[in-house]
Parts: sequence; structure tokens; C-alpha cells
Amino acid sequence: MATSALDTIERGIADPISADGPLSPDMLRRMHGYWRAANYLSVGQIYLRENPLLELPLTIDHIKPRLLGHWGTTPGLNMLYVHLNRLIAENDLNLINVIGPGHGGPGLVANTYLEGSYTEHYPAIERSRNGMHRLFRQFSWPGGIPSHVAPETPGSIHEGGELGYSLAHAYGAAFDNPDLIVACVVGDGEAETGALATSWHSNKFLNPARDGAVLPILHLNGFKIANPTVLARIGRDELTDLLRGFGHEPWFVEGDDPAKVHQQLAGTLDAVLARIQDIQAKARSGKGPIERPRWPMIVFATPKGWTGPRFVDGLPVEGTWRAHQVPIASFDNPEHLRQLEEWMRSYEPAELFDDDGKFREDYASLAPTGHRRMGSNPHANGGALLRPLSLPDFRAHAVPLPEAGQTKAEATRVLGGYLRDVMGFNLDARNFRLFGPDETASNRLEAVYEVSGKVWMAEIDSVDVDLSQDGRVMEVLSEHLCQGWLEAYLLTGRHGLFSCYEAFVHIIDSMVNQHAKWLKVTKAIPWRKPIASLNYLITSHVWRQDHNGLSHQDPGFIDHIANKTADVARIYLPPDANCLLSVADHCLRSRGYVNLIVAGKQPEWQWLDIDEAVRHCTAGAGIWEWAGDEGEPDVVMACAGDVPTLETLAAVTLLRDFVPDIRMRVVNVVDLMGLQPQSEHPHGLGDREFDALFTADKPVIFAFHGFPAMVHKLTYRRTNHHNIHVRGFKGEGTTTTPFDMVVLNDLDRYRLALDAISRVPRLSAQVPAATARYWAAIERHKLYIAEHGDDLPEVRDWRWSR
Amino acid sequence: MATSALDTIERGIADPISADGPLSPDMLRRMHGYWRAANYLSVGQIYLRENPLLELPLTIDHIKPRLLGHWGTTPGLNMLYVHLNRLIAENDLNLINVIGPGHGGPGLVANTYLEGSYTEHYPAIERSRNGMHRLFRQFSWPGGIPSHVAPETPGSIHEGGELGYSLAHAYGAAFDNPDLIVACVVGDGEAETGALATSWHSNKFLNPARDGAVLPILHLNGFKIANPTVLARIGRDELTDLLRGFGHEPWFVEGDDPAKVHQQLAGTLDAVLARIQDIQAKARSGKGPIERPRWPMIVFATPKGWTGPRFVDGLPVEGTWRAHQVPIASFDNPEHLRQLEEWMRSYEPAELFDDDGKFREDYASLAPTGHRRMGSNPHANGGALLRPLSLPDFRAHAVPLPEAGQTKAEATRVLGGYLRDVMGFNLDARNFRLFGPDETASNRLEAVYEVSGKVWMAEIDSVDVDLSQDGRVMEVLSEHLCQGWLEAYLLTGRHGLFSCYEAFVHIIDSMVNQHAKWLKVTKAIPWRKPIASLNYLITSHVWRQDHNGLSHQDPGFIDHIANKTADVARIYLPPDANCLLSVADHCLRSRGYVNLIVAGKQPEWQWLDIDEAVRHCTAGAGIWEWAGDEGEPDVVMACAGDVPTLETLAAVTLLRDFVPDIRMRVVNVVDLMGLQPQSEHPHGLGDREFDALFTADKPVIFAFHGFPAMVHKLTYRRTNHHNIHVRGFKGEGTTTTPFDMVVLNDLDRYRLALDAISRVPRLSAQVPAATARYWAAIERHKLYIAEHGDDLPEVRDWRWSR
Repeated sequence: MATSALDTIERGIADPISADGPLSPDMLRRMHGYWRAANYLSVGQIYLRENPLLELPLTIDHIKPRLLGHWGTTPGLNMLYVHLNRLIAENDLNLINVIGPGHGGPGLVANTYLEGSYTEHYPAIERSRNGMHRLFRQFSWPGGIPSHVAPETPGSIHEGGELGYSLAHAYGAAFDNPDLIVACVVGDGEAETGALATSWHSNKFLNPARDGAVLPILHLNGFKIANPTVLARIGRDELTDLLRGFGHEPWFVEGDDPAKVHQQLAGTLDAVLARIQDIQAKARSGKGPIERPRWPMIVFATPKGWTGPRFVDGLPVEGTWRAHQVPIASFDNPEHLRQLEEWMRSYEPAELFDDDGKFREDYASLAPTGHRRMGSNPHANGGALLRPLSLPDFRAHAVPLPEAGQTKAEATRVLGGYLRDVMGFNLDARNFRLFGPDETASNRLEAVYEVSGKVWMAEIDSVDVDLSQDGRVMEVLSEHLCQGWLEAYLLTGRHGLFSCYEAFVHIIDSMVNQHAKWLKVTKAIPWRKPIASLNYLITSHVWRQDHNGLSHQDPGFIDHIANKTADVARIYLPPDANCLLSVADHCLRSRGYVNLIVAGKQPEWQWLDIDEAVRHCTAGAGIWEWAGDEGEPDVVMACAGDVPTLETLAAVTLLRDFVPDIRMRVVNVVDLMGLQPQSEHPHGLGDREFDALFTADKPVIFAFHGFPAMVHKLTYRRTNHHNIHVRGFKGEGTTTTPFDMVVLNDLDRYRLALDAISRVPRLSAQVPAATARYWAAIERHKLYIAEHGDDLPEVRDWRWSR
Repeated sequence: MATSALDTIERGIADPISADGPLSPDMLRRMHGYWRAANYLSVGQIYLRENPLLELPLTIDHIKPRLLGHWGTTPGLNMLYVHLNRLIAENDLNLINVIGPGHGGPGLVANTYLEGSYTEHYPAIERSRNGMHRLFRQFSWPGGIPSHVAPETPGSIHEGGELGYSLAHAYGAAFDNPDLIVACVVGDGEAETGALATSWHSNKFLNPARDGAVLPILHLNGFKIANPTVLARIGRDELTDLLRGFGHEPWFVEGDDPAKVHQQLAGTLDAVLARIQDIQAKARSGKGPIERPRWPMIVFATPKGWTGPRFVDGLPVEGTWRAHQVPIASFDNPEHLRQLEEWMRSYEPAELFDDDGKFREDYASLAPTGHRRMGSNPHANGGALLRPLSLPDFRAHAVPLPEAGQTKAEATRVLGGYLRDVMGFNLDARNFRLFGPDETASNRLEAVYEVSGKVWMAEIDSVDVDLSQDGRVMEVLSEHLCQGWLEAYLLTGRHGLFSCYEAFVHIIDSMVNQHAKWLKVTKAIPWRKPIASLNYLITSHVWRQDHNGLSHQDPGFIDHIANKTADVARIYLPPDANCLLSVADHCLRSRGYVNLIVAGKQPEWQWLDIDEAVRHCTAGAGIWEWAGDEGEPDVVMACAGDVPTLETLAAVTLLRDFVPDIRMRVVNVVDLMGLQPQSEHPHGLGDREFDALFTADKPVIFAFHGFPAMVHKLTYRRTNHHNIHVRGFKGEGTTTTPFDMVVLNDLDRYRLALDAISRVPRLSAQVPAATARYWAAIERHKLYIAEHGDDLPEVRDWRWSR
């Protein structure tokens, strides 16, 4: 290979002139060749359905009918991959990468193919002409693979479709993996998102002694799909300030001359690795407290669509937003075909691949081997590393219960004791963390601090409590960070639980969408091993936001999760502390789900002893015989959720007093998906089971924690659906008393009792008197709270009696 | 008033020693008194139900039974308010403030009361002992006011319950208000959220010539509810770097000695105002292009719970996280009562308020007057300033349509032409902006660039197109910013539209929750005038994500909006371009709603001419006689959404061919809420109307854009509900062809046709043959796309024929 003029080099066709830097001329030549190969395969995936090695002159028949995928960021990602390969191979590193600019899917597929990982995961994609043909064709082809980095991409723990989560994912992967380095390419478009913008602060939560390292690489490509990026247009000084303000030491690698950039990038990677190793050595020396280091990071400023067409139809493409997607988008013009062929041939495929299409050993031998390859690192297939949690006996935490409704407990505080033991039992395994946005204590789980503090690597002051550099509780006022960290912690084979205020968990609606999709897709990928479930404890819920009012009142996350596919979504509404223990134990053992647990933190009456609780939660729903009458009822009093259960049982006592001969059945639902038909959800009760609980023809008064329509949506196919009358949250709220909240939403005991009487035909004569009693009770309530600012004693102090 | 020792001053009881600074000793004394008054009223609101002026020794009977609200941030907010008052009064400023640390509600209520705004908005809260009694009692009292800054708070455009949106709101208010200064207090806890973290970059989108100024004030209080804050613990150098990196010049005001802080804050405010005025004068001089200035901001570092109890029960409180909420939380201990009384008396209420409870003129006269008071500034009650848009005739943009299903158009591109004219017609009024996360062109609305570019105050390069310092299109890769800016733009009396990819609009689920609640609450506040609706154009939708695959496929935002209260939520699914025009015109004229419009951007067949479209959209749903048969049908083919409408009409043509004697009725639904009963939603069709469309007893095959359960949820009370069979998105997706997407989700024409035949009893004999035809079609489809990577020509080129 001869050296050639700069212009030629910039098209990527020949070898670069060796500029000063750590790479020998031969190494530079080989790395450059590897990069050309990755670029060639990337363009091929986007464009070609036939003629993968360009053995024939390119014709329109070789081009895919639909051109998808993104070229713009790909050459930059490819260069980084080649250089990380060198770093890994030379230093025997345990390193994975997280790719924020996800539209660069073809580059990651290309690189894992070149290193052999891809073929090991997908044997049909051989390292040959045939394999390359299939590789090209499957990309963005129906039944093929997506155009982003995705679950299908070996080596990825990150779906590249929705932008913003790369850096939080990188940190989640690094926690408790002291030997792991996570390189994280952050797109400069992605950097504008809220989630990414706050993710930089993750470095205040990473302990260099205990955790691995994250190496952020800001890919300053300059453009989004249609605009420049903010960070590319604030000048280098302001950008440097910003990155230093995030606690980093930025190293700039910048240019459009591949030779110079190769050398600069190689030298920079060597330097930042040394810096990381220094930081870790110092932190791990055991000498004195650890100071939060200024972690290195790289700003990688290279042209968008580098080595692609400079101009198309007379308009500049390379280095502009026009290179973001497909630089040449149509082939109705023969000049376009010529330009694509020229572009692809500029990488000199025949020089890179042998006659059979195999990547030549001269280049291929640069890649790391075995599990050191980024596409084969087991950390990126966390299920393969997953060890079950060592779980304490949750029964040991049970609230003793001589009789239903005679003891109060704070459900989440009881759970906190159990979680303390979960934390304690797994301290040595270092594979369990608890996540929450400044709310662990507010949610009454603070017993965990007895065994582990909150991790905090920023400054610590004498008034601080429960902070610790070794803590395993993750608190930051960002639901995005809690979610992103936890997702990646799970994706790399560990366990966790996210406790959150019910209303504000909507902040991560979109993130859980993506994680749920990841779980769904991976169930069909044989080499992806199951990971631990994503467990939510949603508390400080809609019915007990005494302090906070309407802004804090929203049970819609149930609806959001219920829209996820049935192979992923699980929703539990334990009615009391013992049920919460049973549900939590089940969720921590489960794999591959999104488990949503909704439970209150306030002192509430307890209903089931631990054995009853286990039986009830295992069944998912059941008749509470002790609370109702035997045999065929006049009315079914159904409930799901702790406050609705309380109101239902209070309604039952009111009814006993007012209509002594009414025959009631009390049904409590823990596992919400049990309401759906079995055809829709694996937890669905069979139709006969459902009818056995809810009857085929009796009125059902259903008190529900969330929006009432959810119950209708789940039960509309059931025999007795037209008899199901649901009360729940209808959007009314304010800062008020607990009981006033249920009154505002017609979920109160008086309303439920009136509903019951109104729906039983044989009691129709009693409806006028019951209605009068209802209004009298509501009037008494309103007068009392206006005067006293608190609930009526008869409501506040009510307890169950049969 | 004598000066006194520092310790006494710090409790807030006496006047501060005048330190060096711009405030004269008398001014300092009076401002300090004003601050003491605000603090006194804040504590009083949190604690007292009786004895507001402490005319009697404090007893337990004077204390509220439930202690809500947050003290921690309040004294700092109060000091800022008093100083902003001085700045306004001395400079005759038009200034509003946005309060991020929302838990400081009592402080803002106190200050608007002291300046007289509160009483003008709520005459019962007089400026007297009685008024103060009511003021204290209503706070966090059932039926009273919330503990956060809220719609009820005069002067607020910001709900303080959910953290993260203050700074985006401040910018939204400042856009196109050149004379307005928006002071924005950002909590250091709030600053950890994703939305806030990226909001700092808003200054790249604010033009100092055309827009007002935002003055961010980072309230470095040091603690969240249970933890220190990140920004308080990274050292001042790193914080300075960070804020400079955000493009600001930070001014630090720091201390715990009120005298010194008063002087420092006053001096700093004078200086930053001068700086703002300089920047504006330079930008408005008309000399040369405007350079993005380095805007000043303030870091206000004062103790949490300043002037509150230093210790409670032997534990430090002031200056720690323990001061975050209620510093003295229970009164079972007489020492606590004594401590509260001492604390409140330290403000010397008798010296601040006269015998009748009126704030003494010596202090009260410091406040600005009339509309200059922050609690009475009309910009914070935007409805009062709202002028209707000047709207072009949308009919002029209609797609000409000689016959249904014979013309294709890209609906959003047609809308883009209309929006261009909306933009053009209102350029002079400067009250319309278009918002989108880097997607305006991708969503095919780029015609607007013909009259207005995209605002961009960062560096501009020669390859950039459509960027402009005066642009009225707001593009940034952050849904949070688009949403936050637009919310505040509307709240201050202007108009806008947010276009977004359907899947990713979930990123702002939680923000729209809060805005919808704001709208709901303000409908019951007489002095809050109606504002323009929040309009979403959701496009690049689930069915046409050809490029992007599963990560981009999610129609769940419909479900999210449908959970909002009926007085706020509106959802439209226009089936073609002309319907989209009619719907958009309607939405831009409406007030006080969240309007969700879902429409595709791809070329699709058009069905209705503009007159038909207007009639159809006005009705909300209707029978398409031209597509079906007269009289009583065998089956109703219903549809909502553009792709489902296409598939439904294609199914109708298939059925005509296969079962020539089938009698079909085609019903199209535009206004989704029309499906609900009138009792649930004002748009709900009457039961007779509904039955007239959907029949009382015939099978309905309903092809729906979103998750199918939504239709069941809306229709479960309808007569014929058990006959409604819905097809929609069931979570299946990938990068594939448009038609394959509907096949994957059983929404395709073949499936709909088979559904129809299967549900008509008299056609039961034909089911086996129809099933065979169905499978043959699916098989043909699968083979074709696997081979060709594109849809079958018969599907791709299908057009309507009767």
C-alpha cells in the first residue's frame, strides 16, 4: 500500500500518512484498514442487497428498495471501536462500550462481525461472502435486525432508539464491577436531553475503589438530524468549563485527517487509561479516605458522515447535518449510483477481504480475543453472570396478627426491615442496590441504613447522616438517574429495587417503555440469558399525599405498565404489610419482568397473617371469608389496593349495621393482571375461577386504587362485566385529609355502602333512607374537617369488627 | 429599634448591623423588617390555627392538628422576594418570579399578602387580624390552599409540586416579552433533575433584542429532604466552571449573617440588573449581529431553615436537612411549644403589625405598587393578556379531492403549509411559536421556514440552513425543553404547537400531568383567565416508523391523555389531511385544553373534501355513506386513525369482492372522546347517537390507532359494547415495512375482513374459505417481503374503488 494525498485519505481509500503518535506506521496502516473495513460494512448494510464485495459493477438491482439506517455518526463510532480494540488487546482490559448515538447500529454490527462475535452469536452470518451477503441483507430488512444498537446487537446493553440514557447506563454497568471499564459514547444530540444532561453527575456516586470506571466519550459530531448541536456551537472554552464543571478532565481529539486523528486518539486513550489506572490504584491502596477524583473523558470531534460523499446534488454532505441519515437517498439518478460505487470502492474492499469474503488476517488479528472482544464480553449479556440473591425469610418480618383489622402497621416500614436483611445477606456478593430519588427514608425504608449507607462521593459534612462512600443505597433527586442506573445494573446481571413516589414515577414512563421492549425482544434471542426483573415499589401514593396535594396525586403508572406486553408486565397491589412482604419476595426472585408494586407507607390496619398473606398473594385474588357471608351473596364488595381495601371493609361494617340481612362477599385482588382473561395474560384467572369469585350475575362494587377505567379494560370480556361498578381515582385531589381524598373521589365507605344497596334489587326500598344517610355522613364529614382540619374521629379511629 | 448582637440577629428578631453595601441603615432596617414579617407569616401558616398575632401565650389549642408545608427553603425565598421588590420599585421593572423550590409555598403566599396582591385576589383574606387568621388557617387546611406554589398563588405561573421545570418555564415566559425580566429561583435539589439540568441551555435560544431576560438564582440551600445536594458539595470552583459552562457569569451571595447577606444581595442585584440592561441595550442598538451574551446569574447560598430553631431535641436543625420540612413536628412535649413560641416571637410580630393586624406602613411601603407587584403582574395571569391568533382560512390549504381514495397527500406536510400561514399572520403580534425536538422537518412541517427560521443564538456556520436569531421555531433535542417552554409561553398568554414523534412524547408524560392539573384547577379560580390550549401534533407515529423499529413504536400517549379529567383532555385522530386541517384550526382557537392530535406524515390516500372534512370533524364521528351500504348493516367497519382507516377501507373492498352480498357500514371516529358517554365527557355522543352509528346489536369491527383496550375503556357502557371487536397496537413491532406492521398487530385488511365475516352469523358458512384466503394472503405477504424487502405491490399500490 502506497501512501497517498490527503484528499484521497479523507475518502478513506488508502493508508494514512503516519503522523507523530504512539502508533507505528504498520500499526497505523492496519488500524486504518480495520476502520475502512468497518466503514465498508456499514455502508454495505445500509445500501446493498446483492453484490456485497462489489465483484460486479454496481447496478440498481443491488440496492435495497428501502434505505434505512444512519450513516452520520457511524464512521466516528467505527474509529472508536477500532481504537478501543487496540486498548483492550494491548492492556488485556475488561471493557464494554455503551453507544449513545444509537442510529449508528450498522457500525456496531460491522465491528462485532469483524471481530467474530457476531458470527458466534448468529452462525448463519458467516465470515465469508455468503455471510456478508446475509449481513447486508438482514439489516433493516423485514424480519432482519433493527437499524439501531439493540438487544440483537452482541455487546450491547443499550437500545439506541430513544436518546438520553447512555451515560446513566454506563454507570449502572460500572457499579460493583471494579475490573470493568465502560466506555460510553455520548452523542452531542443526545447530550441535549434532560436525562443525559444530569447523568454527568453520576460520577459523584461512583467509588473508584469499589466500582469500575466509566470513560465518557462525547462524540462532537456537530449535527443532529436537522440542526447543529448546542455543545458543538458554544466554543471550546465554554465546553471545557462545562465538562470540568461536571467533574471531568476533558481530552480533546479533534480533526478530519484520519492519520492525525488515529495518532491523537491512540495517544489520548493511552493517557486516559493511565489516568484511570492511577485513580484506581490510589483509591484501592487503602490509604486514607478516597477523594472524588477528576475522571478523564474524551471529546471526539470528527466530521459527521466522515469519509462519505462530500457533495450530493451539489450540496455539501460530509461534515453537515445532511450526512445524518442516508447521504445518497435515491437512485433515480445514475450519478447517484456512480457516487455510491465510488464511495464504497474508496474503502478498497478487495484489499480488506479475501476472495471468499473473509476479513484478512493482517487486520483481523488486531481484535481482542474471546471474552475480551466487546461483542462477547459477558457483562453485556448480564443474565449469563446472574447469581440469585440470597434472600432472608420474609416470614421473619411478618406483622403478628391475632385478628384481622386490629393491628396497624406501616407496610413499607415493615418491608424496610426485610430489605435491610436482603441488603445484609448480599453485602459480600455485592449484587443488590436500592434506588430512590431522595425518598428512601420518606418512603420508610430507612432500616436499610443499618447495614448500608447512601453512596456519596462528593463532600461530606458533619451534619450528614447515613452517607457513605461504600453505601449501596443510591439517592439522587433524579428519577431518570435512578431508573437508568438500575436498568444497567440489572442488564449486567445484578439485582435491585426502585422506590418512588407514585405520581413522579411518570418521569421515567418513556424509559420503562424502552426497558420493557428490551425485555420482550430478548425473550426471543436465545443467547440473551434472563436478567433480574425491574422492581418498582410505588409508594407515597395517591390516597395518602396529605402534605402535598394534587401535584403529588396520580395513579396512572398502573395504566402505563398495563399497556406493556403480557410477557413482561406484572402489577401487584398488596392490601397490607404481610402481603407486601410476600409480593416483594416473589418479585426479587423473578426474572425478566417489570414488577410494579403499589403499597402505602402510612399506618394502616392489617388484615392477613403471614400464612394467609402468602396463600392470598399466590392465588392473586381471593374471597376474604372472614369478612363476608357464606354462600351466594347479594353483592360482591371487591377491592384492590390498601386504601380501597380499608374503605371496602369499613363499608361492610356500615352495611351490617344498616342492612343486617344483606349477604356480602368480600373479594380482594393483589395481582391486578389476574383480572384479565387467561388468553391475554398468563396471570389471568380462568373464566370459571373469575366467576367463582365475582359471580356470574351479582352486582360487584369494586374499590380500586387507580383510575376506574383500568378495571373495566381488564374485565370487559368477563361474564359479569356489566355488573361491575368501579370506584377509583377520578382526578380530584388537593392538600387535604386522608379521608377527604376518598370522599372527593367517591371511593369512601359511605359511597361504597350506598352503591351496594343501590345495586341489590331486593333492597330497593331502602335506597332512599340509605341515600339520606350517605348525605348526612358526607355533610358531617365536611363540617368537621372545615372546623378541625382533620378527619372525623369515627373515621380516623375506625377499626374492623365483624 | 436598637442594633443587637449577631446571635440575636440570626434568629431574625432584631435589626441587622448595617454592613457595607448599597442599603442605607434605614433601608436595611425596613427591608429586614419586611423579611421578618414574611418569615413570621410563613411560620404562622405552617403552625397556627388560632392566635395569629400571638396576643395570647401560645397553647396547644392554637396549633393545627396536621402540620404540613416546608420551612427549609422559605426564609431564603422570602429574602429574595423582599430584595426583588426593592429592585422593581427602584427601577420600575416589569418582573415576575418563578419559584422552583415549590415547597416554599408559605413564603410566596406571605409575600403576596404583605404587598396586598393576595387580598385583592381573595378579598376574605383581609389585611387585618381576621384576615391573618384566615390566611394561617386556610394553608394546607382541607378546602384551603396547597402547601406549594400553585395555581392558587397570585403571581405564579409554576406549580411547585413536581421539581425540575422552573427554568424552562422562566424562559418560556421571557420569549417575546422584551420588557419582562423573569427571576427564576432554582432549588439545588431540583437542579439534579434531568429537565432542570438541560434547561440551563435555554440561553442559546433567547434573543436579548427580541426576548426578555431570565435571571436564574440558584438557591444553594445545601440539602434535599434527606440528603445534601450535589451542587452544594462539589466545591465553589467546580460549580463556577459548571455555571460558566452553561454560559452564565455566576455571582455568589453567600452567608448566614442577615446584615451582610442583605447588603451583598442588594449590591449583587443592582449589578446584575445593570449587566442585563447593558446586554439588552447592546443587542437592541441595531448595530451588527447579536453575539450570545454571557448572562449573569446569582448563586444564593444561605442556610436551610434560616432563622428557625437551631436545635430540636438536641439535634441540629437550622442549616441541615432536618430543617427541610417542619422543624418542630410534634407538640407532645411542652418544650416544643415553648420553642415554637420563642421562634415566632423572635420576629417581633407586634413591631411588624399594628393592633389590628395590619402590616405597618413603614415596611409595607417598600413593596412595588399596582401591576408592578409580583403577585399582580399580568404576565403571571396570561389569560388576561391573551389575544386570539389571527388565523388563515384553512380551506385554502385543502387537498383537492375529486373522489375519495384517488389522491395521496402527506397530511402533516399539508398542515405545514397552514402553519406557515399561521406563523406569517402572527409575526407582528409575536405570539405564536412552533416547538419540536429536532423534528419539525422530519415531521414535514418545514414550510414554516418560509416565514420564520429556527431560533439559534449559538454559533452559526455556513452549512447551516433555516437558523435565525429571530426564528420562531424552537428546536432542541429535548422534549422537556419544548414542553416547558411551551407551557410557560401559553401560561403568559401566547399560543403554540408542539410536534413530536409519538413514541417519545412519553418523555414528558409527567410534565403534561402537571399542566393538565394546572388547567383543571384554574378553571375554578375566577381571577385566572383562560389561556390557549396546549396543542400536540403527534406524528411519525407507531404505524409508519419504517426506519426506526420497535423503540419508536408506541401509541400509549393516547392512554395517558385519556386519563386526564374530561374538562381538559381532547384527543383527535383525523383520518386524512383535510380533517387534520379542520382539527388543527379548531385546536388553535380553543382555550384551556390539552389537545392531542395524532396524524401521519407519509403519503396516504385522502378521503374527504374539505367541506366533508369540516362536517365530519365537527360531528366527531360519522358514517361514511360513500364507503358502505345503505340501511341496516350486517357489520359495522369502524376506524379511528389514518392507517386504521386505510386498512378498514381496503378490507371493505376485499369483502365486496369475496362476499358481494355483505352489507357494511363504515364509521370513522375523529374525536376519540366522542366514544365515551356524555356523562363522562362533554364530547361524548348521546346514547341514541352512538347507537345510530354503531347499531344496537350488530358486530362492530373497530380498527384503532392505539392500544385496543382504550376503545373498550371508552365504550364499555354502550348498548352494543359486547359486539365491539377492536384491533390495534398490541406491542408487536420492529424495523419493517408499513404493511408488515399492521400484519404483526392483526390490524391488516385481511384480518379485518376475516373478522367481519366471522362475526356475521349468516355468513358462518363462508368462514372456512375466508380463513383460508386470509392465511394465503398472509403467507404471500411474508414470502414477498422476505424476498423483496418491501410490501406487495397489491398492498402498496392499492387504491379505493367502490
